[in-house]
Amino acid sequence: MNLLEERIKRDGKVLSENVLKVDSFLNHQIDPVLMLEIGKEFAERFAKEGITKIVTIESSGIAPAVMAGYYLNVPVVFARKRKSLTLNEDLLTSSVHSFTKNETNEISISKKYITEMDRVVIIDDFLANGQAARGLVEIVQQTGAEIAGIGIVIEKSFQPGAEELKELGFRVESLARIASLKNGEVTFINEKVEELI
Amino acid sequence: MNLLEERIKRDGKVLSENVLKVDSFLNHQIDPVLMLEIGKEFAERFAKEGITKIVTIESSGIAPAVMAGYYLNVPVVFARKRKSLTLNEDLLTSSVHSFTKNETNEISISKKYITEMDRVVIIDDFLANGQAARGLVEIVQQTGAEIAGIGIVIEKSFQPGAEELKELGFRVESLARIASLKNGEVTFINEKVEELI
Repeated sequence: MNLLEERIKRDGKVLSENVLKVDSFLNHQIDPVLMLEIGKEFAERFAKEGITKIVTIESSGIAPAVMAGYYLNVPVVFARKRKSLTLNEDLLTSSVHSFTKNETNEISISKKYITEMDRVVIIDDFLANGQAARGLVEIVQQTGAEIAGIGIVIEKSFQPGAEELKELGFRVESLARIASLKNGEVTFINEKVEELI
Repeated sequence: MNLLEERIKRDGKVLSENVLKVDSFLNHQIDPVLMLEIGKEFAERFAKEGITKIVTIESSGIAPAVMAGYYLNVPVVFARKRKSLTLNEDLLTSSVHSFTKNETNEISISKKYITEMDRVVIIDDFLANGQAARGLVEIVQQTGAEIAGIGIVIEKSFQPGAEELKELGFRVESLARIASLKNGEVTFINEKVEELI
């Protein structure tokens, strides 16, 4: 998605070879017009999948997921993150480790909002090691719902998450795919391909 | 806002005289079409205010705030909630106590995203005792920005938050105003007025 890639080039801050900060339009300040375009793009990519529900995780997944939900005309459910959860039989839970923050959170979704009749797209802002996405997959699978795919705003393709999810058989649709953050610069997968031609 | 009031009547769960659960369309599962209508309504109410930025708080404020931001064509900044914050001179912070959850969180916003040139609307999902809204007010005031008003999806008018904010001179625009949750039933302010006529 060119609009997104241009925005990452312009406003993203490369903090290290692994860390890209997009606080100015996605993770802290949010650009609603960009979110709408992102939601529209997700909706187009999954338009023929008979989606009935979108599942995301608080907080940065919510804006792109709600816009996708608007265009697909389906509800969005967001998983909550907690340091620890009191046991509650109405909740489906999973454990998610964040390498960036070096902390493990329990994530949860109420049983009420996903059923085995649902066909789900999981949407999140970033995909790196795939911990959050796999946590969401685990929760959705507990309900018996089908997972039609995983929609990611920014994939760090040099980390293993996307590849591993594809090996598990999931369709992964990432709107921007980063090949490298070396030398303080963002290089996208398609730029790398162009260099090779 | 009739659409919202009807939805609250239909899908809200009154858990006690103080607690209304709207998990099925606002706080856990989100109805994107309703969010769009809510965003449009906020945008109309603040259309003449020269708004440059919307400020909200994770997680349930994000969806209505992003839709309002879309219609007002301004960025949205969401405050993050943490049990405790490591001191960081780039952050503006405030302390927010939640009576519902009986916990106090630090909330924070990066200094970069609000300046004294901004004219801000604060948006949140609920207004009861006004703790979260006052925390956001405090943060925005630290930047020197002007607060044009506070937009609330659901106001529990029988609790003191809205009145107190108005006494402090703030314009409070609440889309649904609940007079009472007595007898397991939602009564809106306008219904109470109609009864009196």
